[in-house]
Amino acid sequence: LRIEALTGRELPPLPPGSVIGILGGGQLGRMLSVAASRLGFDVVILDPEPECPASRVSAKQITARYDDPQALEEFARLCHRVTLEFENVPVAALDILEANGMPVLPGARALAITQDRVLEKTFLGECGVSTVPFAAIDDTNALIGAQGQFGLPCVLKSRREGYDGRGQVWIREPQDVNTAFARLGGGPAILEAYAPFVRELSIIAARSVSGDIQAFPLAENRHENGILRSSQAPARVTPQIQQRAAEIADLVCRGLDYVGVIGIELFELADGQLLVNEIAPRVHNSGHWTQDGCLTDQFEQHIRAVAGWPLGDTSAHSQVEMHNLLGDEISQWPQLAKDPRAHLHLYGKSEVRPGRKMGHVNFVRSRLA
Amino acid sequence: LRIEALTGRELPPLPPGSVIGILGGGQLGRMLSVAASRLGFDVVILDPEPECPASRVSAKQITARYDDPQALEEFARLCHRVTLEFENVPVAALDILEANGMPVLPGARALAITQDRVLEKTFLGECGVSTVPFAAIDDTNALIGAQGQFGLPCVLKSRREGYDGRGQVWIREPQDVNTAFARLGGGPAILEAYAPFVRELSIIAARSVSGDIQAFPLAENRHENGILRSSQAPARVTPQIQQRAAEIADLVCRGLDYVGVIGIELFELADGQLLVNEIAPRVHNSGHWTQDGCLTDQFEQHIRAVAGWPLGDTSAHSQVEMHNLLGDEISQWPQLAKDPRAHLHLYGKSEVRPGRKMGHVNFVRSRLA
Repeated sequence: LRIEALTGRELPPLPPGSVIGILGGGQLGRMLSVAASRLGFDVVILDPEPECPASRVSAKQITARYDDPQALEEFARLCHRVTLEFENVPVAALDILEANGMPVLPGARALAITQDRVLEKTFLGECGVSTVPFAAIDDTNALIGAQGQFGLPCVLKSRREGYDGRGQVWIREPQDVNTAFARLGGGPAILEAYAPFVRELSIIAARSVSGDIQAFPLAENRHENGILRSSQAPARVTPQIQQRAAEIADLVCRGLDYVGVIGIELFELADGQLLVNEIAPRVHNSGHWTQDGCLTDQFEQHIRAVAGWPLGDTSAHSQVEMHNLLGDEISQWPQLAKDPRAHLHLYGKSEVRPGRKMGHVNFVRSRLA
Repeated sequence: LRIEALTGRELPPLPPGSVIGILGGGQLGRMLSVAASRLGFDVVILDPEPECPASRVSAKQITARYDDPQALEEFARLCHRVTLEFENVPVAALDILEANGMPVLPGARALAITQDRVLEKTFLGECGVSTVPFAAIDDTNALIGAQGQFGLPCVLKSRREGYDGRGQVWIREPQDVNTAFARLGGGPAILEAYAPFVRELSIIAARSVSGDIQAFPLAENRHENGILRSSQAPARVTPQIQQRAAEIADLVCRGLDYVGVIGIELFELADGQLLVNEIAPRVHNSGHWTQDGCLTDQFEQHIRAVAGWPLGDTSAHSQVEMHNLLGDEISQWPQLAKDPRAHLHLYGKSEVRPGRKMGHVNFVRSRLA
């Protein structure tokens, strides 16, 4: 892996009026674009889907595949700096942008590592951060060996491209081990031991160009079928747990030479130990509560970092419960519009599909001192 | 004046995914557009200036004069409902839109009245709301007569089109009276007596399609050369003053059969009496503090009203000081970016002109219980 020293590069603060490019135009790009406009920036979106959610709130969209060299050249010409809304942008695209003199934050190193679950967990171990035991799996024999070591249950995941619970097969019974590798598709995989967690937590943190790191208060998350359903934040954890999670964020950000917002999913074990489940080199669904709970939200924080500005204040002013609106739950909008504590954030997606993230709602529960 | 019964009309709540049109694409249109996107709406801007501030955060701009019939027809075709960011849209444009079956809120009546200072103050008097003494002035003789009645100082304003201190001449010395009418340009004018106010306040209120009215806490404003410099809110006023201002907002909204957010500027006299200085049928600069001080901000509140949704909660959670960034004050952004209490809102205007509103900053001073 190429090591770019992002934080050592000449990345002067972008003045208002500059143009920020975002690779990916879904809901995360949409909310990043709005945050960028608030700071006086124009935004250009590169996304293969015409009229994607972010394009409706941005100055321009280039409709093209992420690896289209001509589109990337035009993108580089239009922008002063580029960031991304999701980790599955091909690293080759970043290479083309960098070759055109366009800085991309958080950078190719963060992307290359987080696109591959084995590289990611190996990297975490090298940083001194704990994960569940894992093994790279390339055939059923390797799976049988590793499963014998890890016990049951355990989970087989594709090394690349899985998200929201896709690309994984649980192994609960001894006989599952014979079919799991084929059921996943037979490609490069990772076996992960089961973590007997008591809670799922996440920490959203940001690192600036100057190397400053600021973390938001932890969120406590509830998943269903691998999809985030809701977050409660600030999570009711001891100061020690918040502190330990912030140290993990520190190690990960420094290890990746990271610039921007990062989302780190954690398992809390009964003894208070924290294991990292996965890291996302971008703004994160479990950080949406910051929009109505914190002085600076994760979207503005990311734009500040990418623009080379100082980070904003991550203090929470309110206790928030964030609920995702999945599929036809969007049809609850008339009731939600009536609730004085419900802050709606809808994504402008025209097609409703089961499980599709259509919006979220932040319920402001109480003010914090 | 035509009286449209807006609140009696069939205006069902717009579902997310609907298109809201905004006449005018300056900073108010920009912030309205962002609020609309948060609720899942697409926005089309009609503005004669290409790439206006609002267009950069909207799905589409139609670049045309406000009275271009073809542009208005296209606008009506694209939108499900239309609103406006400023009161000087020609009423004829609204008539064309209404003729094309397009509801425009807050409507032609509110516009026609607030476009003319004499009509506005006459209307206020008819509602039972106090203003300074005033007289319609069509020549120097009328001016001499009215000035004799009102004493000195007093202020001569054009009946139409004045804003941010433009279109007014102060009469401070007896001899000024001979030249003032000509200095203003010789068109239809209004003479206003001087109000010996102790404070300038404003109330931002909203009325929904169903007739519900909600006011924000009062702001205390400081003007310089007729331009708003800063607002402090919630203003430190007695509950009686807040109550009286809310009653004024009630009378004005009902009198105009209003739907949307309205800004009402007030003079507070030494004895606690409130006089209305002027009303703006739109979101208002002195309401920008609500973005970082209230559960619902004035922009979302306006979109809720226009979309036929219930109004949001107007409670303040924070004490805020709003400062406008005028002209090259925008160059203070590096210092402001460092201040953890400074929430920046920049308008994306490329050309800096003296006194031009380039952005504003909300300093969050303290949390309220």
